[in-house]
Amino acid sequence: MVRVGIVGCGVVGTGVVQLLLKNSDLIEKKAGVRIELTKVADKDWERQRPFEVPGHLRVTDYREVLESSDIVVELVGGKSFAKDLIKEALERGKHVVTANKHLLAEDGYELFKLAEERGLYIGFEASVGGGIPIIKAVRESLVGNRIRAVYGILNGTTNYILTRMLEEEIDFESALQEAKQKGYAEADPSLDIDGWDAAHKITLLSYIAFGSFFSFAEVFVEGIRKVDLLDIELGRDLGYTLKLLAIAKSRDGEIEVRVHPTFVPEDDPLAKVRDVFNAITVDGDFVGKTMFYGRGAGSHPTASAVVSDIVDMAQRIVYCKGIYTHRMGWEGRELKVNRNFYSRYYVRFDVPDRPGVLASISRVLADYHISIASVLQKEKVCKIAGREGEHIVPLVILTHKAYERDMRGALKVIKELPVVEGEPVLIRVEEEAE
Amino acid sequence: MVRVGIVGCGVVGTGVVQLLLKNSDLIEKKAGVRIELTKVADKDWERQRPFEVPGHLRVTDYREVLESSDIVVELVGGKSFAKDLIKEALERGKHVVTANKHLLAEDGYELFKLAEERGLYIGFEASVGGGIPIIKAVRESLVGNRIRAVYGILNGTTNYILTRMLEEEIDFESALQEAKQKGYAEADPSLDIDGWDAAHKITLLSYIAFGSFFSFAEVFVEGIRKVDLLDIELGRDLGYTLKLLAIAKSRDGEIEVRVHPTFVPEDDPLAKVRDVFNAITVDGDFVGKTMFYGRGAGSHPTASAVVSDIVDMAQRIVYCKGIYTHRMGWEGRELKVNRNFYSRYYVRFDVPDRPGVLASISRVLADYHISIASVLQKEKVCKIAGREGEHIVPLVILTHKAYERDMRGALKVIKELPVVEGEPVLIRVEEEAE
Repeated sequence: MVRVGIVGCGVVGTGVVQLLLKNSDLIEKKAGVRIELTKVADKDWERQRPFEVPGHLRVTDYREVLESSDIVVELVGGKSFAKDLIKEALERGKHVVTANKHLLAEDGYELFKLAEERGLYIGFEASVGGGIPIIKAVRESLVGNRIRAVYGILNGTTNYILTRMLEEEIDFESALQEAKQKGYAEADPSLDIDGWDAAHKITLLSYIAFGSFFSFAEVFVEGIRKVDLLDIELGRDLGYTLKLLAIAKSRDGEIEVRVHPTFVPEDDPLAKVRDVFNAITVDGDFVGKTMFYGRGAGSHPTASAVVSDIVDMAQRIVYCKGIYTHRMGWEGRELKVNRNFYSRYYVRFDVPDRPGVLASISRVLADYHISIASVLQKEKVCKIAGREGEHIVPLVILTHKAYERDMRGALKVIKELPVVEGEPVLIRVEEEAE
Repeated sequence: MVRVGIVGCGVVGTGVVQLLLKNSDLIEKKAGVRIELTKVADKDWERQRPFEVPGHLRVTDYREVLESSDIVVELVGGKSFAKDLIKEALERGKHVVTANKHLLAEDGYELFKLAEERGLYIGFEASVGGGIPIIKAVRESLVGNRIRAVYGILNGTTNYILTRMLEEEIDFESALQEAKQKGYAEADPSLDIDGWDAAHKITLLSYIAFGSFFSFAEVFVEGIRKVDLLDIELGRDLGYTLKLLAIAKSRDGEIEVRVHPTFVPEDDPLAKVRDVFNAITVDGDFVGKTMFYGRGAGSHPTASAVVSDIVDMAQRIVYCKGIYTHRMGWEGRELKVNRNFYSRYYVRFDVPDRPGVLASISRVLADYHISIASVLQKEKVCKIAGREGEHIVPLVILTHKAYERDMRGALKVIKELPVVEGEPVLIRVEEEAE
């Protein structure tokens, strides 16, 4: 019998309680271990929950959980208290399960190191992709592979918004309001829509895929707040779907880790991922590409992930001489995070509909060694106040693979050209083909 | 250090050798175990392989593998020798890894029981879905869930054929020839196109999802040999895509296990799975639906799966008091296989274009408690020789959920009606909505 206690009984915590009370017998039959839920700590037991936690489990002091458990489940969220709690649990010899991507992405190195020193285990399956078992897949199932890339849709809120924009042809603000009404976006949605949540998750995936820690500040993050419906539609005309992708790639012994709006080919499985669903593609040197799809959040799916970590640990406690796990930081050296990405690009310029414009823009691109794959120019009348009669048209250029630094250099020059109106729009394109 | 030997060096075996020689250092860093490849047995070392197995590993007598290894990888395929080999390995105290779905689906009970009695482990991740880590996902990642259903596209050959039929509007025979030319179908393709390969795989998935063995003869299997392009096209007009699905479902304490051509809604992620790709959806009471997608076959992806089993075992050998694993047959009782499916149905009748036809057919359906969801009738001129002038039209009826027995009873009556020409076509529909 292995004793498990929970600190933090919000949406996910309540789901874990419900799962363990409902399915503990089943788990024992399958896994050969008995999980006993000892105590659940929360500061507020008055709050209405979708499932009533039995009175004998409820406590308000987290220390009661620490005292009564072999495995401590941290589900309070946030950074400072959660970090102290995990450290205290580890120092007292308890294994830890957490869904706290924010904390682990930013301070994971310290916590994983502490756990390793003490022969303890930090499970974090629930921190990425809700119920999608991506952590175990990358660490265990694909252990024989050198991972070349991990990328996907890791945030349901933004995927919902982009889906609505595309399918209903509405702008970002209207889609955000819809997401709020449906309960998919929080009152302050910035963690989601500015890309931070996805960035935390791709950081954790990078740690396990590439075996090396890095500073979270190195991650390139661009959200969807400025996404223009026009680009979604122009992209669609070119055969691409716009998604907020989180991407981690290995290239020449360095890694790229980035979150930004991205065009994917419309026949890529990621393009078909709609609404709040998540999907993650892993590319390994032997397995090739595999994709994992499901609900990336929610009480019950996330509880399923928390419990898989609990059972893994419980089996090791019961059956093993010591806890073992696939190592964090196994690469044994720091991998440099490379911010000079190598990618295809979609760029849109608003230009007057007259001869020579494309020539002058493509001249600059050529100077920066950027090769053009295709060009799209659309008929359109200017919406700029006071200039309604003029023919200002969106000129879209799709490039072959180029370096980010060159691309930015070229754009800096191009936007100073007298023929270019306003800011050029730059969207990265994720595609096999060169 | 854990010693691993391979018996059978065909497509998959060669991939495993290549992987272990290339990535053993990486595996040791990640998993904390050193895998040593000892011997590889094959009867024919003259054959050309895409990767040259080093001379010191090659043997022709499988017993040399048994003698030198802690883990024996069976990759000879087929039933009788493979079974003897696995039994001999277990009797000599060796753990076993195999990709042999055919053998495990039909004789798994005996082999798993033998392994359990001896405290040994049979790994079979590679037997379903190639590199897609579905076995571990169902057993370990989703351990906290009561699985309600597992279903998906488990055979690449048939998915390639159905994709070609739909996208190029060609008939089954032409698509099969194309598959053969591309090397996706074997000279004798019956194991694939008649559904047996998918049936073996869904049987194994059922064993682990529902924790109960059953006789493989209980599985309902219908292949794609008789699929008519007309139905693919009529289905598409109704918003469905035809796939060969393998389905295992729990219903009222019994299970349904079946393989047959199936319509799925065109916005279901399974509908988007093209060509030789595989995808498996798992529906659990907490996780909801998750889907796993990738290459379901091939040397390197399958090698990735074989190696994940090897590493799992090696870690347990090194770090654990005994081998432990999620149990086979954990339900502890036999689950009845129910062949009276409960499903939606697509039925096509060829009928003359005249009043009263629909009335007489729907009368019979009502007698059998089958409720009609929608009806589609297409203009079409008869292709039956000698009757070219007549208006014989395909009449398609989509039903709400009904019992298979009722459906078959109704069809038996309907096909005797004077207005119905030839055999009705019956295709099951897999869909959430009632």
